[in-house]
Amino acid sequence: MRTVVLAHEKFPDRAKTAQGVLRYADDEVVAVLDRDAAGTRVRDHVPNLPDAPIVASMADVEGPVDRLVVGIAPIGGGFEESWRPDVRAAIERGCDVVAGLHYFLADDEEFAALAAEHDCELNDIRRPPDDLTVAEGVAGDVDAQVLLTVGTDCSVGKMTTTMELVAALQAAGHDAAVVPTGQTGIMIENWGVPVDRVVSDFTAGAVERMILEAAPDHDYLVVEGQGSITHPAYSAVTCGILHGAMADRLVLCHEAGREAVHGYESFSLPSVPQVVDLYESLSAPVAETEIVAGALNTSGLDADAARTAVDEFGAALGGPATDPIRHGVDEDLLGVLT
Amino acid sequence: MRTVVLAHEKFPDRAKTAQGVLRYADDEVVAVLDRDAAGTRVRDHVPNLPDAPIVASMADVEGPVDRLVVGIAPIGGGFEESWRPDVRAAIERGCDVVAGLHYFLADDEEFAALAAEHDCELNDIRRPPDDLTVAEGVAGDVDAQVLLTVGTDCSVGKMTTTMELVAALQAAGHDAAVVPTGQTGIMIENWGVPVDRVVSDFTAGAVERMILEAAPDHDYLVVEGQGSITHPAYSAVTCGILHGAMADRLVLCHEAGREAVHGYESFSLPSVPQVVDLYESLSAPVAETEIVAGALNTSGLDADAARTAVDEFGAALGGPATDPIRHGVDEDLLGVLT
Repeated sequence: MRTVVLAHEKFPDRAKTAQGVLRYADDEVVAVLDRDAAGTRVRDHVPNLPDAPIVASMADVEGPVDRLVVGIAPIGGGFEESWRPDVRAAIERGCDVVAGLHYFLADDEEFAALAAEHDCELNDIRRPPDDLTVAEGVAGDVDAQVLLTVGTDCSVGKMTTTMELVAALQAAGHDAAVVPTGQTGIMIENWGVPVDRVVSDFTAGAVERMILEAAPDHDYLVVEGQGSITHPAYSAVTCGILHGAMADRLVLCHEAGREAVHGYESFSLPSVPQVVDLYESLSAPVAETEIVAGALNTSGLDADAARTAVDEFGAALGGPATDPIRHGVDEDLLGVLT
Repeated sequence: MRTVVLAHEKFPDRAKTAQGVLRYADDEVVAVLDRDAAGTRVRDHVPNLPDAPIVASMADVEGPVDRLVVGIAPIGGGFEESWRPDVRAAIERGCDVVAGLHYFLADDEEFAALAAEHDCELNDIRRPPDDLTVAEGVAGDVDAQVLLTVGTDCSVGKMTTTMELVAALQAAGHDAAVVPTGQTGIMIENWGVPVDRVVSDFTAGAVERMILEAAPDHDYLVVEGQGSITHPAYSAVTCGILHGAMADRLVLCHEAGREAVHGYESFSLPSVPQVVDLYESLSAPVAETEIVAGALNTSGLDADAARTAVDEFGAALGGPATDPIRHGVDEDLLGVLT
């Protein structure tokens, strides 16, 4: 699939979705749209990403394109009118358009009419399916092994860890797949439910439904976790995912040095052993499970400090740990997952 | 407020909302509509409820009426067409209509037009406000003391316990109010947010907003809990309420003899000490709190067995316990709440 990623004025640092699609999606990204960085290339900004030219508009993209991904979201999730010419041009070229905005492209009169005319799909992935319902408590019955990434906080690397674990399982010869629960994961995998947008009563049910759908086709499912069970605002989503997934094993994600809740700095993070105990004891009445390994984001540390931090994190949680981006996923860690 | 409660073919046992409104709302219920029980009275069916005549239709209700409450909900939450003549007649008499259905009366063309003509309000309480957002983690800052009813399971008496605690606090001279989170509570109190219908990311935020709104006017708030933190389907809602409320004290609700999750009988309930520990340790990183008392539904037991069960429940949770309907709320229990 030949894909263009829209990231106007925000690539790379404020375009996490764009980076996620570049790094993990099967798509061939043929261009990134960023009028501020036009003329440079992806690798001029982020050395270890797949490379692609950065151009100013759809008019500068040559050859056929299958889809346009809106790879940024302004605060509030609105649609920026300055993106309209590119979305319009994409549809007129027959591209599907994928977006994770609160503003739904399919409800935009111009885009809806154009898409009908050019037989394109407008895929608003933040709109949950309208037939979700409550969980039945049956995700534990599937034959596939279910892993779930959980966190000490939001924004500690659960999505990245999920992708890296699946890649490592696949590299070791296992049939593994991601169960995406957030917008970047959904764009990368081309399926999934944005669990933080569903009716609260259906949180666990949404995760259960995805697992039942994916399990027959795979030996391992890695469910992308969200938030943290001790987060002042987002714990409901985390708890619903934990109980809906009924995971066989959990992987704890953390950022080195994080001591307070991101954006809620008056709340201290509990210690790693406390967090481990809480996830396990909260899950147990629905599904006995265990935190078997850890993934630490050490991007703020130098090489020596990163090694030390990973070792300390593993000791605190009582299992193998790694920074999956910096150090990869080794056999020790794979061993406790399988 | 002179109120009529619609409960066709379901009063009393399958009309919990109707019973809740009769028992707890300030409304003067002037009639219950149930075409199957027409000609009888409420007390012919439930001795300890406020009495009212049961009639077949709005045409049989004399005198002025301020509001019609739809006090039943079919499975799926649809609107039964057999109710239409009564709703129509109510609006034509100038009544407001309150319903907790998934089918919104305000979206019904006939009712909307009639309500506009007769200047009536159609209040669909299951529709959450459209301006909810994420919690800020500030409910713990209010001056009012915040109590929260939590449960070992759903359907163990959290709504009833909430109402009885507020009544007991008021009888002891305290300024106390309910924070309603479910449809029956909202109908009784005439305000509140149906927390199980909000976007999952806003669960804690919805509770926080209600507390910030109510706290300046009261010394005590009792937040109506929902579900259970170990429920396979509903734990997300419970967790969001727990962290959104940041309660000073918790009251644990349970039904005597309940050993498995209601409707999910393959899941055993954890022991009472386990449940106590889990609520307290899950709340602690956001708000230190304690389960200080228990409320046990003993309606399935005889008098002696009920006393024994309440004593055992109190011993298991380490505090005073009662069946608030059968034994009331005594000074011992009020003492640990205040």
